Amino acid sequence: MEVLQAAVLGLLIFLLAQWGYAAPSRMQFYMHDNFNLSPRTVLRVAGSANSTAAFGAVMVIDDLLTQGPSPASQPVGRAQGTYMISALDGSSLLLTFTAVFSRGSENGSTISFHGADRFLLAEREIAVIGGTGKFRMARGFAVLNTTSNTNRATIVGFDVTLQV
Amino acid sequence: MEVLQAAVLGLLIFLLAQWGYAAPSRMQFYMHDNFNLSPRTVLRVAGSANSTAAFGAVMVIDDLLTQGPSPASQPVGRAQGTYMISALDGSSLLLTFTAVFSRGSENGSTISFHGADRFLLAEREIAVIGGTGKFRMARGFAVLNTTSNTNRATIVGFDVTLQV
Amino acid sequence: MEVLQAAVLGLLIFLLAQWGYAAPSRMQFYMHDNFNLSPRTVLRVAGSANSTAAFGAVMVIDDLLTQGPSPASQPVGRAQGTYMISALDGSSLLLTFTAVFSRGSENGSTISFHGADRFLLAEREIAVIGGTGKFRMARGFAVLNTTSNTNRATIVGFDVTLQV
Repeated sequence: MEVLQAAVLGLLIFLLAQWGYAAPSRMQFYMHDNFNLSPRTVLRVAGSANSTAAFGAVMVIDDLLTQGPSPASQPVGRAQGTYMISALDGSSLLLTFTAVFSRGSENGSTISFHGADRFLLAEREIAVIGGTGKFRMARGFAVLNTTSNTNRATIVGFDVTLQV
Repeated sequence: MEVLQAAVLGLLIFLLAQWGYAAPSRMQFYMHDNFNLSPRTVLRVAGSANSTAAFGAVMVIDDLLTQGPSPASQPVGRAQGTYMISALDGSSLLLTFTAVFSRGSENGSTISFHGADRFLLAEREIAVIGGTGKFRMARGFAVLNTTSNTNRATIVGFDVTLQV
Repeated sequence: MEVLQAAVLGLLIFLLAQWGYAAPSRMQFYMHDNFNLSPRTVLRVAGSANSTAAFGAVMVIDDLLTQGPSPASQPVGRAQGTYMISALDGSSLLLTFTAVFSRGSENGSTISFHGADRFLLAEREIAVIGGTGKFRMARGFAVLNTTSNTNRATIVGFDVTLQV
């Protein structure tokens, strides 16, 4: 009996270790999409009209990520990827990029994101689709909210929940 | 002994809750790719030749998703994203989009897809790469089959298996 | 007591089966990015300048995958998708594609990848974001290293770790 019980407990511990069980973790950062502000970090590369707002416009980005909402806040990494206007009425974009982190123990680690950024909503959600380094095997999601929006730059807060 | 057994059972229940265990679920919908039909929901935005069928052509989509194969069937959401002809012989495309659902309890929830749509095959499979809202942490896959194909529109059925 | 113990063991076995538990598996292949070599498998489709190296350049690929680093090595599949120069200084690209396998029991199965390929590094890592066929529900990551780089083609080794 005791052997069986020990085996069951041992198996559980083995499974916990193998499945890398951990409680969900949280992370916040802010993305600075400088489409008309130096250093410009957004480039329109395709689309039907000479517009960055019309259905079909495709942008490539290398946006700064910071710890707080201010552009002068502590840098934490870069958002490198693309977004395209993917709603016929221009109200949403398909946002997909890899966040390449640069601070502390996260230096060089990445998280990949993919989802519909319905930017007219106060809060909207995109998916975490994978990770590397410290974030290998990551799943999760991010709640986005725009904290600043001018004709020069948009700042978007990310509240990320991860299950690594 | 009884304490140990209770602890083991409690741990199992805790793990079930934490890992959000659920049996795989299924979902069906149909995607209406109107490339030459009003309302047109496909726009070619890049590529080497003035063709939507040659290697390298990139399209942005905002396709209607319905419950049944008919365009007049109950709408369930939109497929917003992109596909590009990614086989040298034109026989496959890289399809990646977010399905933004609009019906009932799924309203506002999304599932992201990514994969090789070998559209000449009767059945082919792409991956579920993430989800939001009701589909947070989703993994899975979708089996695709073309139910209608004219020079104006293509209708593709999705049979999705999800592990949330 | 014995009934309880049997129930616990049975539940564990059920969970193992349901969650498709398996130890991580490994896979190696090499990607042949022939941008200036016949058969050419890379097409530049968008970007601000007539360059494949500047920020914003977008390429579509249908690259051969082989078992070993030589182009004459055993073919194992194709890498179909896209990469774009996603670092302002040109030092990284967002690489996202589906590996469509063709050998043996993997024939027709796929793995989808997404991540920042910091190609100047000897080793860098991208995420596995999903799979189909034999690789349904796959998660994981790939360590990339460039084994050959000329003005005609680049060969990149992939060391993939999968949790299916």
